[in-house]
Amino acid sequence: MDENLQAYLIGNAQRSLDELINLLRIPSVSTDPQHRVDIDRAAGWVAEKLRAAGPLKVEIQPTDGHPVVYAEWLGKPGAPTVLVYGHYDVQPPDPLEEWQSPPFEPTIVDDRLYARGVSDDKGPMLIPIKAVEALFATESELPVNLKMIFEGEEEIGSPNLDAYLRDHAEQLAADFVVSADGAMWRPTEPSVNLGSRGMVAVNLEVTGPSKDLHSGRHGGAVQNPLHALVELLATLHKPDGEVAVEGFYDDVREPSAELRDQIAALGFDENEYARHLGVPALFGEPGYSALEREWVRPTLEINGLGGGYQGEGSKTVIPSRAQAKITCRLVPDQDPDRIAALVEKHLRTRTPPGVAVTVSRQPGGTTAYRIPPDHPGLTIAREVLRRQFGQEPANVLIGGSLPLADLVRQRLGIDLIFFSFSTADEDFHAPNEFLRLDRFRRGIASWIDFWAMAGKSVA
Amino acid sequence: MDENLQAYLIGNAQRSLDELINLLRIPSVSTDPQHRVDIDRAAGWVAEKLRAAGPLKVEIQPTDGHPVVYAEWLGKPGAPTVLVYGHYDVQPPDPLEEWQSPPFEPTIVDDRLYARGVSDDKGPMLIPIKAVEALFATESELPVNLKMIFEGEEEIGSPNLDAYLRDHAEQLAADFVVSADGAMWRPTEPSVNLGSRGMVAVNLEVTGPSKDLHSGRHGGAVQNPLHALVELLATLHKPDGEVAVEGFYDDVREPSAELRDQIAALGFDENEYARHLGVPALFGEPGYSALEREWVRPTLEINGLGGGYQGEGSKTVIPSRAQAKITCRLVPDQDPDRIAALVEKHLRTRTPPGVAVTVSRQPGGTTAYRIPPDHPGLTIAREVLRRQFGQEPANVLIGGSLPLADLVRQRLGIDLIFFSFSTADEDFHAPNEFLRLDRFRRGIASWIDFWAMAGKSVA
Repeated sequence: MDENLQAYLIGNAQRSLDELINLLRIPSVSTDPQHRVDIDRAAGWVAEKLRAAGPLKVEIQPTDGHPVVYAEWLGKPGAPTVLVYGHYDVQPPDPLEEWQSPPFEPTIVDDRLYARGVSDDKGPMLIPIKAVEALFATESELPVNLKMIFEGEEEIGSPNLDAYLRDHAEQLAADFVVSADGAMWRPTEPSVNLGSRGMVAVNLEVTGPSKDLHSGRHGGAVQNPLHALVELLATLHKPDGEVAVEGFYDDVREPSAELRDQIAALGFDENEYARHLGVPALFGEPGYSALEREWVRPTLEINGLGGGYQGEGSKTVIPSRAQAKITCRLVPDQDPDRIAALVEKHLRTRTPPGVAVTVSRQPGGTTAYRIPPDHPGLTIAREVLRRQFGQEPANVLIGGSLPLADLVRQRLGIDLIFFSFSTADEDFHAPNEFLRLDRFRRGIASWIDFWAMAGKSVA
Repeated sequence: MDENLQAYLIGNAQRSLDELINLLRIPSVSTDPQHRVDIDRAAGWVAEKLRAAGPLKVEIQPTDGHPVVYAEWLGKPGAPTVLVYGHYDVQPPDPLEEWQSPPFEPTIVDDRLYARGVSDDKGPMLIPIKAVEALFATESELPVNLKMIFEGEEEIGSPNLDAYLRDHAEQLAADFVVSADGAMWRPTEPSVNLGSRGMVAVNLEVTGPSKDLHSGRHGGAVQNPLHALVELLATLHKPDGEVAVEGFYDDVREPSAELRDQIAALGFDENEYARHLGVPALFGEPGYSALEREWVRPTLEINGLGGGYQGEGSKTVIPSRAQAKITCRLVPDQDPDRIAALVEKHLRTRTPPGVAVTVSRQPGGTTAYRIPPDHPGLTIAREVLRRQFGQEPANVLIGGSLPLADLVRQRLGIDLIFFSFSTADEDFHAPNEFLRLDRFRRGIASWIDFWAMAGKSVA
């Protein structure tokens, strides 16, 4: 990296950190209407920093929900165009009492910055903005054409992003789409992400008597919806953990030997993992390692269930109804609609006597995401990370689901790559969320590097 | 009945009703510390009515919780002694929005009085007090020696009644113990109760990871406590509804052919019952009618279960823990301790891999209650009811559990009989609780009759 640039980054590191701290003080909780004013403050803050960073065209674009902050600089005709994604909204901070320091009073301990949203995604999204600023300050231009979108609804499922991408598809046309959101896999090495699992969600309701009944007076005469619920849900898995829904594995693409080798090469310590999670033993589908089960095998998980009395002591009730929430994580080539239909059919055809069953699908559904391991964007990312960290980046996958990648592919027709400098262990969505400040500093240099290499690639 | 007495009852019917309405205005909710002052007001009100009824010795006796109102009149040496039980506390009125008229503003519609506690147990417990008043007003004495206890903790499980009975065993010695609490079976005919089921309660907790996990990131690698919960709970019953816990039926006393005949003779309409409950069909242990399953067969019911996310929408979580509450209804000669141990053993020995299971027993436990069908108290009750209603009383049992009967037998060594004038369909513990006023009026005459016959029996 150019010496001027390096000097600029060092000379402005403290200011960049101070700015991040200011952004973190804005409680831009997207799910809470009371914080709507903070959402607008955060969007305004981001737009202001973009304007200060250089001669970008910056717009706060309304949606049916929270605004998107859009910025572009198209001063490099003939060079490739990079579209950057990030989000300025955050999760609610509850439970507040579990925070060691207040969630909106950023606190540094041991080179970690603690605050709600610091890792997801305010730290990572500020990184490319600071990279833009450094490039304009020292070189008066960027090596690529740049478009940036920062949304304010990621933490509520991006309900307006699909329409936004569709409506702005032309404006957003690019050669690379790079997400500053996401996370690297673990703190010991950099990593690039080759894919993620899809998801589909189904709700089950079991209804029995029209009112809750006294279990003394009526117990024995009617089917208890809780008995029917557990009987039905217990049929979804075999005792060894395999999903028992007929046809569930029909379309599953077996991971290639190469992929399985790459995963094995990570040297993941399953015993240490079990200790870390606090379970007596890991458990799951036979024939696959824990990482394979998380990354390349589908699952069916009950995420919640309930019915009857759940308070202190006891209440002798046969409840009128009981319910459960189910999500399936999908791998290539499972289709969310087909899997939902199979689960629904499984549940409907096994309804125990004396109750009725309602199965409803949650809106949405995401297919599994795979990016070719030799995608040009990934090749650049690997080279940048190799130089920055002096280590070979790990090839990893994500067990979770990334609707963004699916949306971008559908609406813009481009494979999205993840280039985030947060780490998956940084307790996002939980109390005491933090960001490793070393990764924040390395991130700015890495994005500068990424654009430099992308600028030299063929558009 | 004597003409004076009859005239007194008619002439004072409106005043008695007004007094009941006054008592119902006191929100003596025993579970709520904010209503402690109302508990004391209700106890004082009851004591005052007892003093006004005749020359009884009346005491408000403290316990470790709410007081017992005690009254006695021992002016008939050589005659039998009757001990009367009732309670002046009530259930909370929630959910308030479902009441057609406010729970503590008694309202009469179609000869039914609507108010919290009117059927359970303020109406029924006021009946013997008004009977005492009528007898002293017209005959200056009672045909029996009388002792009465009215407690203020029935709706919270009578936590201090055991100690009270033990400490006052000598004072409470009697030939008959008659409960004004309980309920007749249905509105179409009077009934006497031959028994009730016992109960024992067990809680189950399944624990997996030390924290809630993201089901995308970790799903597939660990046992989901919700999967383990449903798998474990589903083993408690066979698909036909029979309890599958080994040894559960070992000590069950089969109902006699005579008892089964008596139950069959009630002509209970199972289709109508299913319609009334709003279930597609009745369901339960094969080989027994619905009433037999409720009255003379044991059950194991899950009363509540829960874990993970139960709110709107979905949250992709593998929860750290899941729990369930179980109660068993017992018949002669099942032992609560033994049954709890069998259920506990069943659950412990079937713990699925990857989780830990904790089974804990709820304090207490009640054995099934049976009173000999030819018990002298029952014989009197039947004769009184036959005369009062012009119908043969039905012999019924109670599916629920009556710790009071168990306690009285243990502490005072006497069989308790139920002589209540509420009816099991009067929505006690629910919104719009009501009492049929016809039964209130008939109740007063019936208690007078009961004492008259008891006085002529051999003490």
